[in-house]
Amino acid sequence: MALQISSSISSSSSSFLGYSGFGVSRPTKASLPASRSHGVFKCVITPPEQTAYKTKVSRNANMAKLQAGYLFPEVARRRSAHMLKYPDAEVISLGIGDTTEPIPEVISSAMAMRSHSLSTIEGYSGYGAEQGDKNLRAALASTFYGDLGIEQTDIFVSDGAKCDISRLQLLFGSNVMMAVQDPSYPAYVDSSVIMGQTGLFQKNIEKFGNIEYMRCTPENGFFPDLSTVSKTDIIFFCSPNNPTGSAASRDQLTQLVQFAKENGSIIVYDSAYAMYISDDSPRSIFEIPGAKEVAIETSSFSKYAGFTGVRLGWTVVPKELLFSDGFPVAKDFNRIVCTCFNGASNISQAGGLACLSSEGLKAMKDVIRFYKENSEIIVDTFTSLGFHVYGGKNAPYVWVHFPGRSSWDVFAEILEKTHLVTTPGSGFGPGGEGFIRVSAFGHRGNVLEACTRLKQLYK
Amino acid sequence: MALQISSSISSSSSSFLGYSGFGVSRPTKASLPASRSHGVFKCVITPPEQTAYKTKVSRNANMAKLQAGYLFPEVARRRSAHMLKYPDAEVISLGIGDTTEPIPEVISSAMAMRSHSLSTIEGYSGYGAEQGDKNLRAALASTFYGDLGIEQTDIFVSDGAKCDISRLQLLFGSNVMMAVQDPSYPAYVDSSVIMGQTGLFQKNIEKFGNIEYMRCTPENGFFPDLSTVSKTDIIFFCSPNNPTGSAASRDQLTQLVQFAKENGSIIVYDSAYAMYISDDSPRSIFEIPGAKEVAIETSSFSKYAGFTGVRLGWTVVPKELLFSDGFPVAKDFNRIVCTCFNGASNISQAGGLACLSSEGLKAMKDVIRFYKENSEIIVDTFTSLGFHVYGGKNAPYVWVHFPGRSSWDVFAEILEKTHLVTTPGSGFGPGGEGFIRVSAFGHRGNVLEACTRLKQLYK
Repeated sequence: MALQISSSISSSSSSFLGYSGFGVSRPTKASLPASRSHGVFKCVITPPEQTAYKTKVSRNANMAKLQAGYLFPEVARRRSAHMLKYPDAEVISLGIGDTTEPIPEVISSAMAMRSHSLSTIEGYSGYGAEQGDKNLRAALASTFYGDLGIEQTDIFVSDGAKCDISRLQLLFGSNVMMAVQDPSYPAYVDSSVIMGQTGLFQKNIEKFGNIEYMRCTPENGFFPDLSTVSKTDIIFFCSPNNPTGSAASRDQLTQLVQFAKENGSIIVYDSAYAMYISDDSPRSIFEIPGAKEVAIETSSFSKYAGFTGVRLGWTVVPKELLFSDGFPVAKDFNRIVCTCFNGASNISQAGGLACLSSEGLKAMKDVIRFYKENSEIIVDTFTSLGFHVYGGKNAPYVWVHFPGRSSWDVFAEILEKTHLVTTPGSGFGPGGEGFIRVSAFGHRGNVLEACTRLKQLYK
Repeated sequence: MALQISSSISSSSSSFLGYSGFGVSRPTKASLPASRSHGVFKCVITPPEQTAYKTKVSRNANMAKLQAGYLFPEVARRRSAHMLKYPDAEVISLGIGDTTEPIPEVISSAMAMRSHSLSTIEGYSGYGAEQGDKNLRAALASTFYGDLGIEQTDIFVSDGAKCDISRLQLLFGSNVMMAVQDPSYPAYVDSSVIMGQTGLFQKNIEKFGNIEYMRCTPENGFFPDLSTVSKTDIIFFCSPNNPTGSAASRDQLTQLVQFAKENGSIIVYDSAYAMYISDDSPRSIFEIPGAKEVAIETSSFSKYAGFTGVRLGWTVVPKELLFSDGFPVAKDFNRIVCTCFNGASNISQAGGLACLSSEGLKAMKDVIRFYKENSEIIVDTFTSLGFHVYGGKNAPYVWVHFPGRSSWDVFAEILEKTHLVTTPGSGFGPGGEGFIRVSAFGHRGNVLEACTRLKQLYK
């Protein structure tokens, strides 16, 4: 009997060190990170009556509904297996969407200063407000929601959008039904399954029961045909979208808000990539009149300031948003935040405040510009090879069509033949089948080298 | 119609700045923090048909079951109200248990260095492993569980024990029943209510339905009479206990593990105050033979290194712990951590690693020794006034008996007459009625001044 615990597999995958900042770097030699101990252990043979002790606690049936691992750890697992097979390969990851460029110094310095000040009598502070530092909340309100009527008290600072998505699911409970874009970031569906909102996974259609999948394809411009979408309590909507890279237009978001209002639904709008928008698509759902009565918005510093490891995000729950009985949603979310969370790290929050200074904003925009140049390089590469390519313009993700092929097969082909890690589109839902997502997060040298290899493979 | 959103009320309350480190400081003048904007707004009178728009989403019934606010924000609210009433009062807080002493420099320096390194190519890293940095996990395993058979892969680093408690509830789901010490840290019960594990609050007995309250009183030495405790799936057990300050002995914990094994229960053992133990009480549940098959342990750097604002904790889920179907609990917890969390801040984790260096450990012990001296001063004060006093010896909490009196009345009396903030025992469950909890976290000068005022009041 061999029992395997995969608890040490993580979705972290960027252990590549480049050799220059925003310049050209050569891909580093792959090595198997020492951290990826798989914890395999074998039990010695014992008499049959001496089986392992089991508690009498039943496994949570919702956990059992989940399919395999969470997508990104699975991608990391395959990458690790590839590295074992080809220990000398120079693997490049354009996979899980992990930022690679250093944090601008104006921001890291603020965090270092806050760290130091915590060892002084004057600078020390203990528990912060669970909802976040009021100066940061005020800066978020004015920077991102200037004249949209969002106030400091509508904003809850968090340790990242992914964490807030689960807290929002806790808030809604198990007796709601949700809709998601198909394809979409897997945390929406998986957290819904964990909360018990869904039925079982239906293998034939690759969907969970009791979730409305809103198909987003090139044919509908990656915006769902709302006339065919069933009414649900909650609508998760991510724009610019992960993984398709599409940003919804003002007209489309106006339709979405209207649709939510007609149905009495709550939109959870994920705007974690809003600063990547190049055109005049809305940066916030609250740019749409009436949205404050139907929408929550969650966002993050991760992809703006390289805070994927620092952990800082925020969620806006407008005081105008009410449950059917008139109870303010913000009041229940506040209770969740106070009971199940204890605020983001004070050091990370100091970094967030520095991000929103004029120097910090400029530095963030430089980082974003750099990644967007990467997007262009990737888009141009696939376009030149004759692929249909989407996204990249308003988001750090490029969505490449391989019609008629399995995403995992394409993922495996690219990995096997070019040592490049991408993400299979089907990992984001059945609507992603036939696509791969290529992330624009990478050192320039790695992105250029990746494109050279792709040109070799698909010439 | 006036609608009040109390979202800006927080449990953070320590805005007192002292004038010396571990020495004597004078209490600062109270002022109403500018952050406490209560967000009160008034709607203008409108024709009756123009009532506020409401969504059709029902409020989560579990949220509606919760009683008033979470305890500590409620204490903070009363403190703020007191400050409004007495703007010149020198309020001292021995209330919510917030650390007051600066973080030792060996630890804050490590966080500052990590912050700086994030702005370099060599030092930058993005997403870390959701389970935490492997070096930190290894250091936690060797420091706190040296020869107890807990491995690095059994440890999940988190942003604090409170947050992990909710993630554990998500893991268990709504179809379990739990037991808690009565009194106990309110996050156990409240997170159980939010997850839908409980019935309604029964006002007459001050308990939620479908929770087993294990009464802990001076009469039973603050250890429940297990012969009268019903079998439950989960047993939350905190030792040294918050709020009573009692640490369970080896014999008592052996009984507890035996009880769990007989019933097939899972113990969630909160050891966040273990380093405060002065006698030979176990520091970890895993010191008890067989505990790895029945227990999870959650802990935190908050009260050891002043990390209440920095946010860093950990949870141990041994690979030996199995659900009734033999599925490893750690595997499901790993899925929760990967889906609903994205790892603790890399800067906080660098601080954690510094805490576990030999210099860091020594510095933490110095901080703990300081707070324990505060405990002694508080214990001596109440003892000299003729009160029955518990705790303090193995924990930074002193549990003072006011037989026959309402805890909230005593809280109010002390606040009104001495401008001291304590915590009413009944906030921790019906078993806390008639007690108040006095926290030993405070500058020495404030603790001495508080004791002087108490001697005036109760002489």
